[in-house]
Amino acid sequence: MAKKLNMLIFSGEYDKALAALILANTARQMDVDVTMFFAFWGLCLLKNDEKINLEGKSFYEKLFSIMTPKGPEELPLSKMNFSGIGKTMMLEMMEDGEAPKLIDFVNGALNKGVKFYSCKLSMEIMGIDKAELIPEVEVMDAQQYLEDALEADMQLFI
Amino acid sequence: MAKKLNMLIFSGEYDKALAALILANTARQMDVDVTMFFAFWGLCLLKNDEKINLEGKSFYEKLFSIMTPKGPEELPLSKMNFSGIGKTMMLEMMEDGEAPKLIDFVNGALNKGVKFYSCKLSMEIMGIDKAELIPEVEVMDAQQYLEDALEADMQLFI
Amino acid sequence: MAKKLNMLIFSGEYDKALAALILANTARQMDVDVTMFFAFWGLCLLKNDEKINLEGKSFYEKLFSIMTPKGPEELPLSKMNFSGIGKTMMLEMMEDGEAPKLIDFVNGALNKGVKFYSCKLSMEIMGIDKAELIPEVEVMDAQQYLEDALEADMQLFI
Repeated sequence: MAKKLNMLIFSGEYDKALAALILANTARQMDVDVTMFFAFWGLCLLKNDEKINLEGKSFYEKLFSIMTPKGPEELPLSKMNFSGIGKTMMLEMMEDGEAPKLIDFVNGALNKGVKFYSCKLSMEIMGIDKAELIPEVEVMDAQQYLEDALEADMQLFI
Repeated sequence: MAKKLNMLIFSGEYDKALAALILANTARQMDVDVTMFFAFWGLCLLKNDEKINLEGKSFYEKLFSIMTPKGPEELPLSKMNFSGIGKTMMLEMMEDGEAPKLIDFVNGALNKGVKFYSCKLSMEIMGIDKAELIPEVEVMDAQQYLEDALEADMQLFI
Repeated sequence: MAKKLNMLIFSGEYDKALAALILANTARQMDVDVTMFFAFWGLCLLKNDEKINLEGKSFYEKLFSIMTPKGPEELPLSKMNFSGIGKTMMLEMMEDGEAPKLIDFVNGALNKGVKFYSCKLSMEIMGIDKAELIPEVEVMDAQQYLEDALEADMQLFI
């Protein structure tokens, strides 16, 4: 029976998202089942910047939507971000080594069968509508996350 | 036999504490046994602001006690805190959705039988006395934490 | 059969590294097998400051090498760092309680048989050469990390 990896992606940072997606892609190449559950800031990674919609949002929800990253490439680094300078440096260093962009890792993971779920309560708190996320994502609540995670061989909170 | 969830709460941030407490409450509703082990900054969540006592503390312990959050409602956000503006925004957004306060989640978890432990070594390093914490907390050392966590079905470091 | 603990050390912060090393040392005293896999900022903990070498690095790799911590004692706190003041406070508080330095925990862990691995891809992205790390570290890729972690009884992302 296939092993199972479950990751709760809480943080909305470029480097942590990259690490999680590398693990997801690598695990699928090993035939490990992978679930990624995106909550709070992690939802920013799933935003489709062409679908962000301020209509129907409250004042604070609009402000929040404007102030948070609008998709994977806008995520900041967890450290040394310096208004984006550290991230530019890291991207330049990765291009030297010909590493792909974050969106390529997202698409690679989806193509390999990694399951993407967004946290229902986080979407409600942050005023994010399902239509604003990439279409491959399904909505899940905390109980469904726990049912999946408790059956997995390893769980990470990232 | 009941499944077991073990969480090590290291960070002292409002949003991470909220996520952990939602998982703890949800897990108990599913009859999963839950242990929360609070270490370092996570101890701020357990502080009883009416019992904080500077007597007998060293100079640095006093300074630390004054500069760290005095209970759950004082915890900052992990991102976009902007001297509290981001947190005010999130609380406003939650009130629109009628979500309860952090202390309600703490009390809910305690009422449902979530076990709360504080890390002995962290208390020594940070100069925190057991009397300064909410009374339901028991002190545990790293070995006791590991014994519990190694028997659990899932472990998260938050 | 011995229980197994696997930790992925992603963050390069003093307090999180200290927590991870305390768990590693304690687990070994309980005869638990321990693997620590250092990725991204976590690699800073393994740097040997006498061996850092800027030759052969690209412009950005040099800048990155200069701007990141050069070994365990240079790691900042995850919170309240205030240009190092918070860390000085914490170190003073630990000396009151006669706690050892981070490098003592690293050496203790190595002496007790904790296995230290550095992430191959992170080293490539950050331009870090094996010769710049402490000699006891072995290089591992994401697949080898996952194989080890999936067999462990608990996994933490720190």
